[in-house]
Amino acid sequence: MRSMDVLVINCGSSSIKFKAYALDDGLLRACLVGVLDRLGGATTLRVNAAGTEPTAQALGVVPDHAAGMRAILAELRVTGLLPEAPRAIGHRIVHGGARFSAAARIDEAVLDALHAATALAPLHNPAGLAGIRACLDAFPGVTQVAVFDTAFHHDLPAAACHYAVPLAWAEQYGVRRYGFHGISHAHVARRAAQHLQRPYDDCRLITLHLGHGASMAAIRDGHCVETSMGMTPLEGLVMGTRGGDLDAGVLLHMQRVAGLDAGQLERALNHDSGLKGLCGEADMRNALARADAGDARAELALAVYCHRVRKYLGAYIAILGRPHALVFTGGVGENAAPVRARICRDLDHLGIHLDAARNAHDDGEPLEFHAGAAPDAIRLLRIRTDEELEIAGQTLHALA
Amino acid sequence: MRSMDVLVINCGSSSIKFKAYALDDGLLRACLVGVLDRLGGATTLRVNAAGTEPTAQALGVVPDHAAGMRAILAELRVTGLLPEAPRAIGHRIVHGGARFSAAARIDEAVLDALHAATALAPLHNPAGLAGIRACLDAFPGVTQVAVFDTAFHHDLPAAACHYAVPLAWAEQYGVRRYGFHGISHAHVARRAAQHLQRPYDDCRLITLHLGHGASMAAIRDGHCVETSMGMTPLEGLVMGTRGGDLDAGVLLHMQRVAGLDAGQLERALNHDSGLKGLCGEADMRNALARADAGDARAELALAVYCHRVRKYLGAYIAILGRPHALVFTGGVGENAAPVRARICRDLDHLGIHLDAARNAHDDGEPLEFHAGAAPDAIRLLRIRTDEELEIAGQTLHALA
Repeated sequence: MRSMDVLVINCGSSSIKFKAYALDDGLLRACLVGVLDRLGGATTLRVNAAGTEPTAQALGVVPDHAAGMRAILAELRVTGLLPEAPRAIGHRIVHGGARFSAAARIDEAVLDALHAATALAPLHNPAGLAGIRACLDAFPGVTQVAVFDTAFHHDLPAAACHYAVPLAWAEQYGVRRYGFHGISHAHVARRAAQHLQRPYDDCRLITLHLGHGASMAAIRDGHCVETSMGMTPLEGLVMGTRGGDLDAGVLLHMQRVAGLDAGQLERALNHDSGLKGLCGEADMRNALARADAGDARAELALAVYCHRVRKYLGAYIAILGRPHALVFTGGVGENAAPVRARICRDLDHLGIHLDAARNAHDDGEPLEFHAGAAPDAIRLLRIRTDEELEIAGQTLHALA
Repeated sequence: MRSMDVLVINCGSSSIKFKAYALDDGLLRACLVGVLDRLGGATTLRVNAAGTEPTAQALGVVPDHAAGMRAILAELRVTGLLPEAPRAIGHRIVHGGARFSAAARIDEAVLDALHAATALAPLHNPAGLAGIRACLDAFPGVTQVAVFDTAFHHDLPAAACHYAVPLAWAEQYGVRRYGFHGISHAHVARRAAQHLQRPYDDCRLITLHLGHGASMAAIRDGHCVETSMGMTPLEGLVMGTRGGDLDAGVLLHMQRVAGLDAGQLERALNHDSGLKGLCGEADMRNALARADAGDARAELALAVYCHRVRKYLGAYIAILGRPHALVFTGGVGENAAPVRARICRDLDHLGIHLDAARNAHDDGEPLEFHAGAAPDAIRLLRIRTDEELEIAGQTLHALA
């Protein structure tokens, strides 16, 4: 049968992604990947294992993450794809609160801390906790590790992580900048340092994770010193359905004048804002196609999206000093060359010179798309992120 | 007696400032200045007229702006300081809504628009409207002009003024970036252009109005292209008692977990945040003194304050291209040399080189405090703002 060293579980709001790795001569090699989609609706399960035909099946309505995890494990056992327990299971957890600066082996104390952090991320953490519980049931003896989207930002400088709000909000209610997407930022930052052939702790990098969610991070000498998401994933860049930066007065206005309550605001800000709010399309590919066809609202959405990224680029260059590289990743950052070009346009005064042909001609990994080779020019890199691989690596590291 | 060409009225939340100007050979010269303070409490009135002794008196409790304006006008008439009607009265109005791109002569249509804009600025516009009404009663035949803090930002590019929120919020509820402090930004920007001996419409400037309220503006070729305050004055920089940028999720969290309602949030965000929230001191002079004495919370407040300004500086340099000058104004920007120094520290890679001696040795107006004379260095200027003079000038301009 096959060996499986690390199983990675990534529970989203209505999906469970899983990926298994074998440790082969010190390298993690994926041997199985799958996704259970549309929890609570017409749930589907797709599995793709090395050396077998991909499978897809309809499971009817799987009600929640616990039932979803059971369905996944049952299927893998039936098909013989999960013949033995993995050495470790790594779980992506969105919000680690103020406590976790690195991945953590799960025990009772860690579980308590995860429950406490759920108040900070009621939309995101319960799914991850459900995944952990299901795996504790299924693999009672296997080491499980929580890998956090917040941990990479744990040591943000005080000037960056404090909001200027009443002191009691910070002390009693945990109000501070936590930052998210840290698994992805950490992954591409280390890969960028390798590509630049510089020690990771001697690099100034700006990483742009532009996907359905989107955030940026400023990294100096191996430490994240600023990031655009805040206490929650609502702050910062324009995203597919989240609007990013917003005057607090807008929320007060919409409560006072439009009569929205906190729940309605939360849904609108998480699900009906961002690109979707501006032009009706949450997917950048659709927004780009419509803008190309002359749609004024899609053009506006792109303009707002790119303007926001450019403001953060400038802000992070001010903070960091001239970075060695900008690193684009995430679905939009990896694949939308026109968005990369628009973000980098007319920033020559900051040392950013994009080569249009290299940017459009997608033939490298990492793809380098800066112009020329001026010694002080900022390298422009496109690096495909791999959050599951990063989780697997951090999981193994936590075992050591 | 004396001639009075323009009377300027600036109604704050609990005060009325007034200043009268005579037009003398084309120049506006202040001939009278005063302030009515602590409306609703132990109200005081101070008046300082050219050629007379300053006066100060306790008026008991003056309940509101209408009564306050009547008290001011009665006092000026009794003392002979207001012997005749002015040619025009200029009123500072915080929020002009989406309509006003310049000062406007007040008529019924303008009054209707001001009433409509009150929904956008319920904390700020009613005072200004009360001042207008009192002056319409007192001087029925005199031209009155509304001068807006928003007008300077009226033509922000679409990418800068749209939030990525549901379309209906913008279309039905006026949600967009308006920007404030425009009277001050406009005033110091024009003075900076004169000082630089460049045409105003051929300048790239970043103006930093750092007072009890604080905002920044990026100005290209005579047009404001970005500004840090938003739909309301809550967004952007750290201020005396307002916190500026804040994750929308913080408001949702404080409603859900701490049980605050919209009114409590509004008070906390307007009156108990900013420097006051971080260290208990709303006044930068006190925060600086405490930080100098080793107080860790005051040091944190300064760090957060300056970090935020630096982020906006970088963002605006990205947007503008290298600016010709940074212009510091407002009570903090004009007088707090250590804050200017901290904001400009380690930004040489952006062309910002502060001369510590010139910055500390306050001997010019404008004060120039950049180092050396490198041709591409950004000029660092301290220009004292004069909002009343700007209002008087815009009032005369609206008459023409």
